[in-house]
Amino acid sequence: MSNPEFVINAAGRKIPTQVNGQAQIPFMGHGKYKPAGKKHGPPIASCADYPANGDKQLPNLKAALGKAGIRDGITISTHHHFRDGDFIANQVFDVAAELGVKNLVWAPSASFPCHAPIIRHLKSGVVQRIEGSLNGPLGRFCSQGKMKGTGVLRSHGGRYQAIQDGELHIDIAVIAAPAADSFGNANGLFGPAACGLLGFALADAEYADKVIVVTDHLMPFPCIPWQIHGNLVDYTVVVDHIGDPSKILTGTTRITKSPDRLLLAEYTAQFCDDAGLFHDGFSFQAGAGGTALAIGQFFSRILQREGFKCRFARGGSNQYLVRMLEAGLVDYLLDGQTFDLEGVRSLRENPHHVNTSPFTSYNYHGKGNFASMLDVVILGATEVDIHFNANVVTHSDGYLHHGIGGWQNCLAAKCVILPVPLFRKRIPIVREKITTLCGPGEMIDVVVTERGIAVNPLRQDLLDAVKHSSLVIKPIEELKDIAEKICGKPASPDLSDDVVGIVKWVDGTVIDSVWKVTS
Amino acid sequence: MSNPEFVINAAGRKIPTQVNGQAQIPFMGHGKYKPAGKKHGPPIASCADYPANGDKQLPNLKAALGKAGIRDGITISTHHHFRDGDFIANQVFDVAAELGVKNLVWAPSASFPCHAPIIRHLKSGVVQRIEGSLNGPLGRFCSQGKMKGTGVLRSHGGRYQAIQDGELHIDIAVIAAPAADSFGNANGLFGPAACGLLGFALADAEYADKVIVVTDHLMPFPCIPWQIHGNLVDYTVVVDHIGDPSKILTGTTRITKSPDRLLLAEYTAQFCDDAGLFHDGFSFQAGAGGTALAIGQFFSRILQREGFKCRFARGGSNQYLVRMLEAGLVDYLLDGQTFDLEGVRSLRENPHHVNTSPFTSYNYHGKGNFASMLDVVILGATEVDIHFNANVVTHSDGYLHHGIGGWQNCLAAKCVILPVPLFRKRIPIVREKITTLCGPGEMIDVVVTERGIAVNPLRQDLLDAVKHSSLVIKPIEELKDIAEKICGKPASPDLSDDVVGIVKWVDGTVIDSVWKVTS
Repeated sequence: MSNPEFVINAAGRKIPTQVNGQAQIPFMGHGKYKPAGKKHGPPIASCADYPANGDKQLPNLKAALGKAGIRDGITISTHHHFRDGDFIANQVFDVAAELGVKNLVWAPSASFPCHAPIIRHLKSGVVQRIEGSLNGPLGRFCSQGKMKGTGVLRSHGGRYQAIQDGELHIDIAVIAAPAADSFGNANGLFGPAACGLLGFALADAEYADKVIVVTDHLMPFPCIPWQIHGNLVDYTVVVDHIGDPSKILTGTTRITKSPDRLLLAEYTAQFCDDAGLFHDGFSFQAGAGGTALAIGQFFSRILQREGFKCRFARGGSNQYLVRMLEAGLVDYLLDGQTFDLEGVRSLRENPHHVNTSPFTSYNYHGKGNFASMLDVVILGATEVDIHFNANVVTHSDGYLHHGIGGWQNCLAAKCVILPVPLFRKRIPIVREKITTLCGPGEMIDVVVTERGIAVNPLRQDLLDAVKHSSLVIKPIEELKDIAEKICGKPASPDLSDDVVGIVKWVDGTVIDSVWKVTS
Repeated sequence: MSNPEFVINAAGRKIPTQVNGQAQIPFMGHGKYKPAGKKHGPPIASCADYPANGDKQLPNLKAALGKAGIRDGITISTHHHFRDGDFIANQVFDVAAELGVKNLVWAPSASFPCHAPIIRHLKSGVVQRIEGSLNGPLGRFCSQGKMKGTGVLRSHGGRYQAIQDGELHIDIAVIAAPAADSFGNANGLFGPAACGLLGFALADAEYADKVIVVTDHLMPFPCIPWQIHGNLVDYTVVVDHIGDPSKILTGTTRITKSPDRLLLAEYTAQFCDDAGLFHDGFSFQAGAGGTALAIGQFFSRILQREGFKCRFARGGSNQYLVRMLEAGLVDYLLDGQTFDLEGVRSLRENPHHVNTSPFTSYNYHGKGNFASMLDVVILGATEVDIHFNANVVTHSDGYLHHGIGGWQNCLAAKCVILPVPLFRKRIPIVREKITTLCGPGEMIDVVVTERGIAVNPLRQDLLDAVKHSSLVIKPIEELKDIAEKICGKPASPDLSDDVVGIVKWVDGTVIDSVWKVTS
């Protein structure tokens, strides 16, 4: 972090022109940056270098990392389908430490609190930086300026884009797979660590130089379906346990019982209803939080009342979406990750429950993607400003707490609604300024709070549609004023001028910086 | 064809060093050539250039080809899943002619007699050459030296390899799809032109600059399963009819009733049995000809007798393979193309009937492929020489008659058996020399004829295994002698020194030349 140069991007945010030795392109406004050049071409392989009988097994992860050419300064990736139950990422860097390798880049599709042991490797120099979400202890470590390199935060689609475009080069991808054959065909449907899908590892399989599949549930060839193609895999490794099943799938997902959150859910559903957003062939994505689940339930009732059918709903899937699918309320469930056992069962059994990936759903540097085709998407936020700009990665104290996930990608939907409490622990959510910009206000249509709903003035059509609604529709400035009246004007976080991370937009440009917290 | 330079390759065949302006690598022996470099990277796209609602429909093929930038000298590809019932390839070049475009390269995954109208465009200069199989009238045209450019013949896997490696650059891929949505998601399972699979168009979708999906059966988004990903598609077009269903699927495939062919089938099955090739977990690929179907029936009986189960069988699928799958004799049917209605039905209904592609099954420049994992593969040949080298593209008169299909790729199997008649129409099949080398003898293990079976001396293990068999096992030279005794020494074809085509090996090197026929 040696005195980088800064520019102000199109969103008015100060961002560095170089990060980790790579020149950066400032955010230009959504859809303004046009990529040139070609997709990344990984090395051409030859069957001559792989066993004719298809058996690519090596005795352990260390042997596989060795064969794959682990060495100083390379980038190693893992996926996050096991969420807080992942055993493999930590093991990879333990092996690296054992081998005396330094300055690695870890490029996970997301990190979780279970990855706190990586801090040891960040301190010792085994890992130079993390390109991926920085949550919990890792987020705190980075926010305090303790990570050698600069964090690079990307959405799920942005990660696919970056890998596809050659912006994020992966030397070795380690793909933990609940089920695999020795050739490397793999899926998330079977075995003790069944997580449903493996789509977050797709870019890694396609574009990494070397690909290792690690499983604790080896099946005879062919492992069907091959969510990961063995034809892209260099080595396979069998271990005792790839993850902790109790933390991979929670068994159940539950609808919120909090009256505040139920109220947000009800308002959100009523808003969609009053605005006339439902129709036969409707599509929506709501996520898996308690509020989102409640919204799904309210949506179901309205759809049933009207006799409408959803053409598709997007997962993360859970028992409630599965119920809608099985009840015939939804034609297709286009699923990117599975949150409970019912989701995995349905995915295994029901051809209308469909495996999607950041490529199909979110990649902005594709020939279209699914995100922009959704009628309604329901998202969260840690902060929203009076221009509808929103934050999802830092809290108002400046600390990195969350990954972007598919959040930025989902903003492409036809109607983007953020149901958020007006304040949390007496800290306003709706406010004058946000700590970190993750999504430009022009793409956020509605903010639903318990004390009123704000509609983006750019969406005069929606404002007209809810003119006679019984809902409390207010300018967003008023919501901010109410929040400040109750909580007081929020204090600014204590931030220094040191950049500890950058937030990428869906097109690979830099939308904001994350600053070192000094308090 | 201006005096090219020639070299003798590792198989002893004379091949040109340059073809169509591209330097060629001579065949070095199987597994000897190691590719360097990176896979082809197609241009990076941006969602900004595609409709947010996902509707990429254009009014007709002409509009789509125009938008896709059709111009002189580019390469346009089509697939052959409709076999002799394809309507689209001819239309593409009719449009090109109408637009006054010249010197196009047509890169079909295979050509059929229905493509004879392309001859008009070859004559007029709209099409400069065909890179792909040259059968029937097109083969004759090329063999007579009438095609401006030089034909490049590749196996299914070789075509994937060439496109992946950037050796065959496709500017515009036109993918006729039995079912598609307006976003471009497509499959072969539904609609009047249902052909089962679309795997032969996979490389085209992945690597072409521009991709057009043409359908006569538009479905609302999402068209599931997406055998072709809409995220790779630029434009969609709806037409009245993409093909002639009566020529796409024949409705039934029939086991041969010819006593000669039944004998070959019986000998082949008995050979496998006597050689101890069957075991629980067996795998085989036999193709869809009448003899191959009969072999499948004999195999079934042996498997049943032994209480063995196949772990997998490879298609082209047909009613007989489907029956084996449904009877539980086969765990998985790994299918590359579907030959009858039963195949399509099974593929639609049965998750154990699996969509494969030249990428999974045949691409030699992958990290392994399925072909080498098969226990037994049964293939045909037009000629076999006394070193077990074989020909599949020309007949003994020198004319191009057939495509390579997956033939070369399948030679990687553990045991390759060619059941062939010793002669056809009094022309020896087993002979001193073959007209065109397609597969090196080192990879061909057994030649089964009605007058005896020859085992490659390289396979002493097989020779030992059948030592006490009641089958007539003979050195291949003896088979040749018998053929010559009956038919006389075969005459050499009348060939000039003009190269009209080259045959690529699975690794992109040139294994042989095809010469102009002067008779």
